[in-house]
Amino acid sequence: MKKFQEYIRRVEPYTPGEQPQASNLIKLNTNENPYPPSPKAVEALKEMDMDRLRLYPDPQATVLTSALADYYGVDKEQVFVGVGSDDVLGMAFLTFFNSDLPILFPDITYSFYDVWANLYRIPFACPALDENFRINPEDYKRPNGGVVITNPNAPTGICEPLSFIEKILSYNEDSLVIVDEAYIDFGGESALSLVNRYDNLLVVQTFSKSRSMAGMRIGFAIGNKELIRAMNDVKFSYNSYTMNQTSLAVGKASILDNAYFEECCRKIIHTREHTKEELEKLGFSCTDSATNFLFATHRDIPAETIFEALKAKNIFVRYFKKPRIDNYLRITIGTDEEMEVLLRELKQIIVHK
Amino acid sequence: MKKFQEYIRRVEPYTPGEQPQASNLIKLNTNENPYPPSPKAVEALKEMDMDRLRLYPDPQATVLTSALADYYGVDKEQVFVGVGSDDVLGMAFLTFFNSDLPILFPDITYSFYDVWANLYRIPFACPALDENFRINPEDYKRPNGGVVITNPNAPTGICEPLSFIEKILSYNEDSLVIVDEAYIDFGGESALSLVNRYDNLLVVQTFSKSRSMAGMRIGFAIGNKELIRAMNDVKFSYNSYTMNQTSLAVGKASILDNAYFEECCRKIIHTREHTKEELEKLGFSCTDSATNFLFATHRDIPAETIFEALKAKNIFVRYFKKPRIDNYLRITIGTDEEMEVLLRELKQIIVHK
Repeated sequence: MKKFQEYIRRVEPYTPGEQPQASNLIKLNTNENPYPPSPKAVEALKEMDMDRLRLYPDPQATVLTSALADYYGVDKEQVFVGVGSDDVLGMAFLTFFNSDLPILFPDITYSFYDVWANLYRIPFACPALDENFRINPEDYKRPNGGVVITNPNAPTGICEPLSFIEKILSYNEDSLVIVDEAYIDFGGESALSLVNRYDNLLVVQTFSKSRSMAGMRIGFAIGNKELIRAMNDVKFSYNSYTMNQTSLAVGKASILDNAYFEECCRKIIHTREHTKEELEKLGFSCTDSATNFLFATHRDIPAETIFEALKAKNIFVRYFKKPRIDNYLRITIGTDEEMEVLLRELKQIIVHK
Repeated sequence: MKKFQEYIRRVEPYTPGEQPQASNLIKLNTNENPYPPSPKAVEALKEMDMDRLRLYPDPQATVLTSALADYYGVDKEQVFVGVGSDDVLGMAFLTFFNSDLPILFPDITYSFYDVWANLYRIPFACPALDENFRINPEDYKRPNGGVVITNPNAPTGICEPLSFIEKILSYNEDSLVIVDEAYIDFGGESALSLVNRYDNLLVVQTFSKSRSMAGMRIGFAIGNKELIRAMNDVKFSYNSYTMNQTSLAVGKASILDNAYFEECCRKIIHTREHTKEELEKLGFSCTDSATNFLFATHRDIPAETIFEALKAKNIFVRYFKKPRIDNYLRITIGTDEEMEVLLRELKQIIVHK
């Protein structure tokens, strides 16, 4: 082995959900939105001044941060945008988690946190969710280098109320608290209302789920100006121009089309609740989801068996072969038609076992 | 100060070139291409399946890595793509530069290297260019944690021959050598022909200059498969989906339109050589540029004076207030018409001093 090979950083790469390429499949495995992006966003993309592609984008991403600031009622200096919420969260870890104390996040949560922590050599500890997959706030009342709470949590789908977030904040005045709200628009109560009261709170959201734009890679963080300035300083030192011209244009247009956004969220919530009822009739039990997915376990048939049987029928859901959750399926909410096919196939699978 | 504020990472942010917003200006300060992107790339963007925006992009960016692999005659496993070459270079620093020995790059070169090194706490040393702004290869014959050579160098514009790169490689069999070729398409000889002979060579290029797509944020690295796999592992652990659907579509279409690409490069080289001659008639001397900019100093008038006088006329060039180069201007090559206006205004400025 040559010297330079010894110094290559070895990481445990994150395994994203399968992106199967067949065309006649039902894809309920990566929490994408079944509805297309706002027609106004599509129009903005088609009509953008294509000559601008030769120019560097505005490094401040002003058109997008301003649109978000107006929409959420904060100053544009309180908004940071990045290439998906993964970029935003990674940048937040790099910017804020530089203490020698471990950062804290639950044992069952978004699976990127420990990967970033390892990548940046940030110590971490993972208090266990209770037997009902709930977070015990008392576990976050100890010296730490920061706290990350996904709310609603993934892949459980369970949302904690604002009073829970405030309790976490009250225990952690000396720590930066990140609330990752990737799924908040499907029924949860956002902590954005708290950012002007807590200078240690950073709320992160994404356009990938509720805004039907996983393919555009747009995420954002909102917090007090000092936090956002620090993140921008790190970002500018890394790559000043991360948001390309197309992201800025469609991101802004999407934010302005609130009616379409709300209608899509409403449809997904409705489909979720209906699907949940039907799954329960089939012998599943589901957590109380405030997201665009259901987290379901069957009373008789192992989750992995159902997962494989669905896959054989070209229906993809997500299965995590991990302790405590290896008898659960995470099922993204698709269109009503897709969920009907899913339920029909599940009935077949259950009858034949 | 609260504890969490103490642990915020403080960095010296990079200052990008001004992005003035007025419309009647001549912008020769950030090395953008004066010609629009390939019409085929624009068409690909307008005609893409907009429903795909709701889906996560292919994390492998296969359509783009395959197009690049075919174009450059390598395997697609030898190609890494990122959000501009800054993203690619940053990822390379994080992946490869983990030794305790300093990495080496010239004192005068692309100004992001020391920022990334500081961000990731990589030790570094910067051998001085000689009095003609040339790199002395002997300076890179010492134990080190890696080598970064910009070729052609920026902001000097000077390109070293392939034999120079091979000399650097021969001195550094135990080190990872990055050759940053952001400007190579304007007359230099690429080290891509060497990647299959040296397992420690990583060549980085960008779509921002020669392919008129600074606004799309596309950069790439080519090297042996082991290097590319290591970078992808780090990338996947950070943010699996960095290249949005639009980048993949226009990137591929651009690569396929070779005739347009070559024509744009030819025009810029022609304009550069003509502008250089005219500048010399006005009392400037310029380095021998193989890029889309000229690095020029005037025999009588300080660069900063000229910079300010041009700015007053709404012509923006780049001025670096840094030791050794603070009497130089970096002038991006625009269209023939833009360069005529520049030369006319320079004549005025010089006559009146």
